[in-house]
Amino acid sequence: MNKKVLTGETITISIKDLKIGNHHPPIFIAGPCSVESKEQILETALRLKAIGIHILRGGVFKPRTSPYDFQGLEIEGLKYLKEAGDAANIPIITELMDEKNMDIVLEYADIIQIGSRNMYNYPLLKALGTIKKPVLLKRGMSASIREWNMAAEYIAAYGNKNIILCERGIRTFETYTRNTLDLAAVPIMKKETGLPVIVDPSHGTGIRELIAPMSKAALACGANGLMIEVHPNPEKALSDGHQSLNIEEYKKLFDEIN
Amino acid sequence: MNKKVLTGETITISIKDLKIGNHHPPIFIAGPCSVESKEQILETALRLKAIGIHILRGGVFKPRTSPYDFQGLEIEGLKYLKEAGDAANIPIITELMDEKNMDIVLEYADIIQIGSRNMYNYPLLKALGTIKKPVLLKRGMSASIREWNMAAEYIAAYGNKNIILCERGIRTFETYTRNTLDLAAVPIMKKETGLPVIVDPSHGTGIRELIAPMSKAALACGANGLMIEVHPNPEKALSDGHQSLNIEEYKKLFDEIN
Amino acid sequence: MNKKVLTGETITISIKDLKIGNHHPPIFIAGPCSVESKEQILETALRLKAIGIHILRGGVFKPRTSPYDFQGLEIEGLKYLKEAGDAANIPIITELMDEKNMDIVLEYADIIQIGSRNMYNYPLLKALGTIKKPVLLKRGMSASIREWNMAAEYIAAYGNKNIILCERGIRTFETYTRNTLDLAAVPIMKKETGLPVIVDPSHGTGIRELIAPMSKAALACGANGLMIEVHPNPEKALSDGHQSLNIEEYKKLFDEIN
Amino acid sequence: MNKKVLTGETITISIKDLKIGNHHPPIFIAGPCSVESKEQILETALRLKAIGIHILRGGVFKPRTSPYDFQGLEIEGLKYLKEAGDAANIPIITELMDEKNMDIVLEYADIIQIGSRNMYNYPLLKALGTIKKPVLLKRGMSASIREWNMAAEYIAAYGNKNIILCERGIRTFETYTRNTLDLAAVPIMKKETGLPVIVDPSHGTGIRELIAPMSKAALACGANGLMIEVHPNPEKALSDGHQSLNIEEYKKLFDEIN
Repeated sequence: MNKKVLTGETITISIKDLKIGNHHPPIFIAGPCSVESKEQILETALRLKAIGIHILRGGVFKPRTSPYDFQGLEIEGLKYLKEAGDAANIPIITELMDEKNMDIVLEYADIIQIGSRNMYNYPLLKALGTIKKPVLLKRGMSASIREWNMAAEYIAAYGNKNIILCERGIRTFETYTRNTLDLAAVPIMKKETGLPVIVDPSHGTGIRELIAPMSKAALACGANGLMIEVHPNPEKALSDGHQSLNIEEYKKLFDEIN
Repeated sequence: MNKKVLTGETITISIKDLKIGNHHPPIFIAGPCSVESKEQILETALRLKAIGIHILRGGVFKPRTSPYDFQGLEIEGLKYLKEAGDAANIPIITELMDEKNMDIVLEYADIIQIGSRNMYNYPLLKALGTIKKPVLLKRGMSASIREWNMAAEYIAAYGNKNIILCERGIRTFETYTRNTLDLAAVPIMKKETGLPVIVDPSHGTGIRELIAPMSKAALACGANGLMIEVHPNPEKALSDGHQSLNIEEYKKLFDEIN
Repeated sequence: MNKKVLTGETITISIKDLKIGNHHPPIFIAGPCSVESKEQILETALRLKAIGIHILRGGVFKPRTSPYDFQGLEIEGLKYLKEAGDAANIPIITELMDEKNMDIVLEYADIIQIGSRNMYNYPLLKALGTIKKPVLLKRGMSASIREWNMAAEYIAAYGNKNIILCERGIRTFETYTRNTLDLAAVPIMKKETGLPVIVDPSHGTGIRELIAPMSKAALACGANGLMIEVHPNPEKALSDGHQSLNIEEYKKLFDEIN
Repeated sequence: MNKKVLTGETITISIKDLKIGNHHPPIFIAGPCSVESKEQILETALRLKAIGIHILRGGVFKPRTSPYDFQGLEIEGLKYLKEAGDAANIPIITELMDEKNMDIVLEYADIIQIGSRNMYNYPLLKALGTIKKPVLLKRGMSASIREWNMAAEYIAAYGNKNIILCERGIRTFETYTRNTLDLAAVPIMKKETGLPVIVDPSHGTGIRELIAPMSKAALACGANGLMIEVHPNPEKALSDGHQSLNIEEYKKLFDEIN
């Protein structure tokens, strides 16, 4: 077996002035599941920045189970997201599903998100190994801890150690929650890889009321940050509204934690 | 559908002077997986009491996967556990596997534990509905939240609402940990039943190093207590040594939390 | 480790003139989920016997998730089942949930069924080791193959090797079917234990239309028999009607297979 | 919701003179996990063709959990596979992991395989909707039946209904087998989509001895074909040797079935 690149030694990620890792306070990523319009993302960005978040999220390429569901605003949405990030003076993160769009996403986004469905997409992981920007690698929905570790190793082995891991729940027999948030994976992956590990309680539970308690639990067991879906009007969201907080709810959670 | 007895209204459990529930601080249950000798359980009881725990645990009837593994000291062990609890002036909890032993366990123990393997044992749950002492009901290893709720409802419907729920991890595809600790079940079951919910990070992870972070996470999301396996000499334990803390490790964790 | 009693050498079970095991043709067990009335079980028995089944099933002690659901006719139902079996001149099988009822169930039934929820009930398994009548041991709904093997070993180690194993589906993330029928367990458990292994496609799928194809698959991979829920009027059944065949449907399947 | 393209009406796939679907006998696909050399694949092709198989499989782009494991011979291997198929006068199938290689794979292969890890790769599925050649779509390792159905719908909605589905086992708690082969998915997916559904018992069990019984079970419940890993020397295979049959073992199975 070759020597692993991710040895467990602490790796700190820098995005402009922001630092993410064991020697730094937890970071807060928030924003809507999907960028839906210029106005929606701009309003969200400005209000979330005022609350104190560090990074703005917003999906523009959306991996949806059905081909007939909303697939995202794509490049147009990416530009709206960038404008909103600039207006709020805050870095942005968005999901990349496809190597064909890697250059344009790299041009606009500060962090490249790899979603749960692409954790096993090894050609894409190899491509991400050739860039320098940070990659947020979500755990596959039924990926074992070892497979997730090896997926990060793919990126690192090809040259890029700027990786943030994100636990987002695993698929189990339980149907009350959308996924089963596996918080034990947080201390395990921190120790095994040395990378920062953040938690997404929105996908991890799929239930608005569980986001606050699971956010606190995540930080208590050592998570280096939280990624939470926030929408100015969850009832009208084009995707994942039932698991999104509105901005007031998010502010309350943010203030309780900080 | 009949009216449920457990409506979600807060239920507080009293054991002597101790109160368990939403309006009270979390309780700490600790002790060895198995009572192995008079000396082992007495030493453990006195040292854990000195640290500050509220309830002493110790298994005397052991549900083991193989018929050829140590099955517990049974009645003899129960008497040792009682003597240790008396010496340390602390309530005791032990597992009941069988209605035949209900009277003798009730005579000695302050709380009756129903283990994961018996959560679906409805005749036993009905029998527990006829007693007054508190029952600690562990979640079945692959029980859905609804099934666990209904198992508690069996006990309550037959007359006993003195129930403490215990999340102890569920069975998933992940093999790094012994079980996947489903902490989202804590706020869910508190809301659905009104009962106190505690967490067992020892079985929930099966890995000594994960007990501290997952204990903190459990309390952060609202757990009403923790049940942790502690053995004076885990390397020599007759069962579950790999997931037991020694007494110094437990003291460190206890002090960090309190 | 002690020497296992179940070594893999073929064990043949005899019930009156009937033989179950590797050197004999597959056996057919059928009948309603629950005995509901004297007339219902008698009609079912006579019509199924005319079709050619070998053993009549009928539940009288019913393990139900909710305490408010129909719990079975208990002793009264047991007598109806016995009368129906006698009238049709066919052995009967029913589930035992509780050692307290072991003597009466032994008095009436030819085979004692241990349901999925009691596969881990070790005191009950030990008690079944002391009898001579055959035990049908269903796999626990999330029992590993090794745990199921060890549960059979409990009965055998305490003295009774008259065990029939029954695969009835396991709990997975898939919700289309009630359970995931794990047919690979059939050849595995035959080889590991030497015991006959039958399959229950009714619980294994929970969908009427899947019973025929999965019955054929079960026999194709070596199952020693099939246990299928049949009700004269599934739409009016007190339990599990959606997964029961009516008698004509069962006859069609029986004739296709034989 | 848009009207589904796959309505359940039978779709028959044609590859040269070969037909796959409900009105045709089952097809047999066999070959090594990986193309390892020109000689290995040529020998395998000629011997398997002599036995009677219909399609030759061989992996050249290999999705491996670790970046340090053998990743396949890539284009070179694809040419060897094509030469072997031509020599044996038999169509070939190989896995495509990446849209970048779609043109070259289309040039050489008769069927494009999409592996378990790419079932959620929607950009790739959309691209496959624009071609005419048949696509073999494996079920994701933890994909629900509905998600698998929708993945096929992606390809069909973008214009290509030449799809063969392949059940290859799902990820569950059971560790005795590599995956849990979900044969109930065969009749379900045939009915839901109308597409042919084949079974891969090699990945579905991960155990050589289980391939024969599970192949028979698959055909008994209606599978339209079987895909089995066969290697002239499994002990020396570069990947998946433990679940590969040697050529004599495959001949024995083939003859038993036919």
